[in-house]
Amino acid sequence: MPTNGRILDRDRTLRVAGAQIRNVVGDLAGNAEQILAAMSHAEEAGADVVVFPELALTGYPLADLVLREEFVDAAAATLDELARSSGLTACVVGTIARVHPRRSWDVRDRDVAISAAVLFDGQLRGVYHKVMLPNYEVFDEARNFAPGSRPDALWRIGEAIVGIAICEDLWSGDGPPEAQAAAGAEILLVPNASPFHQEKPAGRRALVTEVARRNATPVVYVNCVGGQDEIVFDGGSLVVDADGELLYRSPQFEAECFCLDVPLGPPRPTAGEPTTVHGRPPLQRRQLPAPPPAPEIPADAQVWQCLVLGTRDFLVKNGRSSAVLGLSGGIDAAVTAAVAAEALGPENVLGVAMPALGSPDDELHDAELLAVGLGIEYHVIPLGSITAVVRDGLAELLGGAPDERPSEALAARTRAAILWAISDQLGHLPLATGNKTELSVGSAAVHGDMAGVFAPLKDCPKTLLYRLAALRNQRGPAIPQRIIDRPPTVRTDAWGELPSYAVLDQIVERYLERGETLEDLVAAGFDAPLARRVLQLVDDSEFQRRQTPPGVKITTRAFGQDLRMPITNAWRPYATDHGPPVEVPLNPVRGDPPGAE
Amino acid sequence: MPTNGRILDRDRTLRVAGAQIRNVVGDLAGNAEQILAAMSHAEEAGADVVVFPELALTGYPLADLVLREEFVDAAAATLDELARSSGLTACVVGTIARVHPRRSWDVRDRDVAISAAVLFDGQLRGVYHKVMLPNYEVFDEARNFAPGSRPDALWRIGEAIVGIAICEDLWSGDGPPEAQAAAGAEILLVPNASPFHQEKPAGRRALVTEVARRNATPVVYVNCVGGQDEIVFDGGSLVVDADGELLYRSPQFEAECFCLDVPLGPPRPTAGEPTTVHGRPPLQRRQLPAPPPAPEIPADAQVWQCLVLGTRDFLVKNGRSSAVLGLSGGIDAAVTAAVAAEALGPENVLGVAMPALGSPDDELHDAELLAVGLGIEYHVIPLGSITAVVRDGLAELLGGAPDERPSEALAARTRAAILWAISDQLGHLPLATGNKTELSVGSAAVHGDMAGVFAPLKDCPKTLLYRLAALRNQRGPAIPQRIIDRPPTVRTDAWGELPSYAVLDQIVERYLERGETLEDLVAAGFDAPLARRVLQLVDDSEFQRRQTPPGVKITTRAFGQDLRMPITNAWRPYATDHGPPVEVPLNPVRGDPPGAE
Repeated sequence: MPTNGRILDRDRTLRVAGAQIRNVVGDLAGNAEQILAAMSHAEEAGADVVVFPELALTGYPLADLVLREEFVDAAAATLDELARSSGLTACVVGTIARVHPRRSWDVRDRDVAISAAVLFDGQLRGVYHKVMLPNYEVFDEARNFAPGSRPDALWRIGEAIVGIAICEDLWSGDGPPEAQAAAGAEILLVPNASPFHQEKPAGRRALVTEVARRNATPVVYVNCVGGQDEIVFDGGSLVVDADGELLYRSPQFEAECFCLDVPLGPPRPTAGEPTTVHGRPPLQRRQLPAPPPAPEIPADAQVWQCLVLGTRDFLVKNGRSSAVLGLSGGIDAAVTAAVAAEALGPENVLGVAMPALGSPDDELHDAELLAVGLGIEYHVIPLGSITAVVRDGLAELLGGAPDERPSEALAARTRAAILWAISDQLGHLPLATGNKTELSVGSAAVHGDMAGVFAPLKDCPKTLLYRLAALRNQRGPAIPQRIIDRPPTVRTDAWGELPSYAVLDQIVERYLERGETLEDLVAAGFDAPLARRVLQLVDDSEFQRRQTPPGVKITTRAFGQDLRMPITNAWRPYATDHGPPVEVPLNPVRGDPPGAE
Repeated sequence: MPTNGRILDRDRTLRVAGAQIRNVVGDLAGNAEQILAAMSHAEEAGADVVVFPELALTGYPLADLVLREEFVDAAAATLDELARSSGLTACVVGTIARVHPRRSWDVRDRDVAISAAVLFDGQLRGVYHKVMLPNYEVFDEARNFAPGSRPDALWRIGEAIVGIAICEDLWSGDGPPEAQAAAGAEILLVPNASPFHQEKPAGRRALVTEVARRNATPVVYVNCVGGQDEIVFDGGSLVVDADGELLYRSPQFEAECFCLDVPLGPPRPTAGEPTTVHGRPPLQRRQLPAPPPAPEIPADAQVWQCLVLGTRDFLVKNGRSSAVLGLSGGIDAAVTAAVAAEALGPENVLGVAMPALGSPDDELHDAELLAVGLGIEYHVIPLGSITAVVRDGLAELLGGAPDERPSEALAARTRAAILWAISDQLGHLPLATGNKTELSVGSAAVHGDMAGVFAPLKDCPKTLLYRLAALRNQRGPAIPQRIIDRPPTVRTDAWGELPSYAVLDQIVERYLERGETLEDLVAAGFDAPLARRVLQLVDDSEFQRRQTPPGVKITTRAFGQDLRMPITNAWRPYATDHGPPVEVPLNPVRGDPPGAE
């Protein structure tokens, strides 16, 4: 193993356990139970220290829950209990902690920090407070938390000098890890709550390597696992040595504890006074070799597992065990059903086909084949007579039946009302089947295809769904090939001409995820009028996106907390047809008649 | 007028205009037009300086729109045009500005600031960048903006030394106004984008007085006007002298320009080098007395005007001019209809009664009387045959008709589907009629009573609606008295016993707005089991609130961006019946069978 000329003292090791737990926001008792189990496990393995994820005790993210005083109090009380249960393995437990009120970027004091509590031998030995608080994309930590003010804090565990940094602390290049290494840290322990997107695992690996090499310290990076509303923590914890070489990698998307001996970085002079966790000399013991790293999962399979875990956890953590969804014979419903069947067990999924008058027979047949292939319950409720009577009711007011597009939207909303009624009566949670492409260009009727309590495919572009269906079928035929082969309907009526999904998905990705402009797209070879039309549709449909259920983030920017535009927004650089102009009555001089006021 | 012993030099004045404009997010051309009109007006009045609101040119809040490079470029280009149009009245124009990238609380560089550009005689003379970036409640400025780093910047306008601070800058007690006064500022010009809630106008008045007295400087506080998604800017701009005495107050909820001579604070030594806007000696001119301050509006009337303006602007700024809503004979629909009629003109509102089988005749009659009283269009679509055929369709699957509560929800969702169909066909924007009380305790079916593109009463407690109805009727009978007098139905079936609305609204307000705990409520005299039941219902229904349309914020904490809890949240301190326990399979040791995985 290369050492880049540095002398790693292989005899000086710290036995480190990492607990990649599957915690739940707000579930202090349940999370504490998981933490205690991992503490026992680590102690049995003779670990010097066990590292838990960021906010292991409280769950992540907390949003405005952290503003509830009674919650902060309860977390502190639960931490005290954990401290009393700690033994001779030091524990680094992610939690929240009250701190001296600090006002740093606006006029409001914050008095709660994101912290890592160090427990040992029945006591709380000290607390590190996260310094860097991410405040972009899905993160809003600066909203409610106070930043820590001691980036260079050190800890003595036996003969090792240890630094503790939390998640974002690692990413700046000149943050707490650098301060700690400069002050004498020989190893960095890093609790994280790092959510998945397609580029994240490679990014983490590169980061951890870089931090280790820059600071000549091994890095123990511990992530959590599980779905929490819009995000999924994918685990994949990492341990690298002081050269950045991989010592261990946890599996993604499942909980585990690991334990290995980590060679310390080169000893160096210590600045300041480390907090002593304990000063016992190291035990005589046999070297514990690192277990083999978990194999890396191919890209689309990561997405599949992310969707399954995100869907499962949304239901399970909300006390539900069964789901209902509409089956249409289309690819969206097919992949949603397949994800739900794997997440919950097929016996806990009900598919309801609601064919409209004139729906092709083969689509209904495919819906049934899908249900059989997945082994889920299946039911048919013909929609024709229902929408007919609604249309009759509307006819007098509208002066005739609705036009084609309103009719499609009416059918989609009627289907949704039926699914909600089934949910209300039977307790199955309704899943929405819409995908990111429709949400992007506004072709999903509000409260229609996107109706439900959770939308597994909300962040999946249409073209990805075909790859996911093929991937699922590798484990045995489940999704009828005719569903995969049927060309998707591309709207060309009131929407104007749209490109194929293959082109559409690329344009949307470049615009939303990479911030490209029309100029960039044209330079990259996309047809200018077509690209302009797509960008305009994206800009025009924010209001629809705001009323959708949460879904699983898998791309670098997902609609929701991650990417929010104003609904009322006259910025339409790509509009070719502006519609009625926005006219706000101007009344600049007091005493003038109020005009349209 | 008392001077607290300080010598105000009444001969040394600055003629200040304020432009309380009604701008639109993203509407650079339209906003620039309003700014130009006010610039002309101020120049005609011989003003030395005209002050615009915060982000006057771009609108506020921008959310992730500011991440679009092409928007930042376009704002800069539009500002250049405004600069070229500027004359001998200096202009303080709120806008965004690119700045040197700055990283202050996490690892992401921000390179756009919230700024006040100073324009004069065809040129941009300089830019002040907001230092304090609010990041709580409805505000998320730290998400995308870089903070300014020159809190003590000064400006020379003629013989006056001027400080410019922006909104949050004013609120810290030791921020830019204090730095500027200490450096020599004789007057503070303050652009704001300050949204309404019931306690805001009094809070602003107290703040401005305090800042003026603390710094011995007059303060010119200019706010904008208008609805923007969930918030309404209510104007009410203020000018106080160096003793904090009111010189002028703009009206609330309407645009205007004002102009008056403001006596400067006492001259003091100047630290640093003010940026010279111009150094002309003051013109010989007659003193321009302050116009009479706008009268203060009673509390409930402020709310009424806020709802009307918020609803009007949501529609108008989104290019719509007409609305449709369901009329039920209840108070919610009545107040929503009355607000809509005033916001859009009664001729632009369609009320549709959709009585269920067995709905009382007097409620249908009241709906019709309401429509007549308000002068809105009215139509009846009986729901009975529609829900009957849906229930028939469901019967086989459900093994009979749905139970009572699911049936009510089905009726509400069917009504919503009908309103959407009308909207799709006729272009009227559907308004939701639900109120804050139902949203708080989860008694509004998702996509039922809260279905629509905008929900005017989303932040109005039920008890407030009766006061608003009475207030509306003071201007002529419009809402039938029987609607106001009819006791509201309080659910007692599956929901358990709930207190009267009068008590319920107090409990909800104390819990959500004041952060009180059950203990606090009991200490204040509320019945413990009843209060506990309410808090549990509030905790349990976050998922319903997330799929609601935007509405008008009127309280100190409104659901939406202002107050967001995790949906998946096992924290249930007030639960008496927990429902099925949350069981997350724990798989702590790698190699174990994955269990429920």
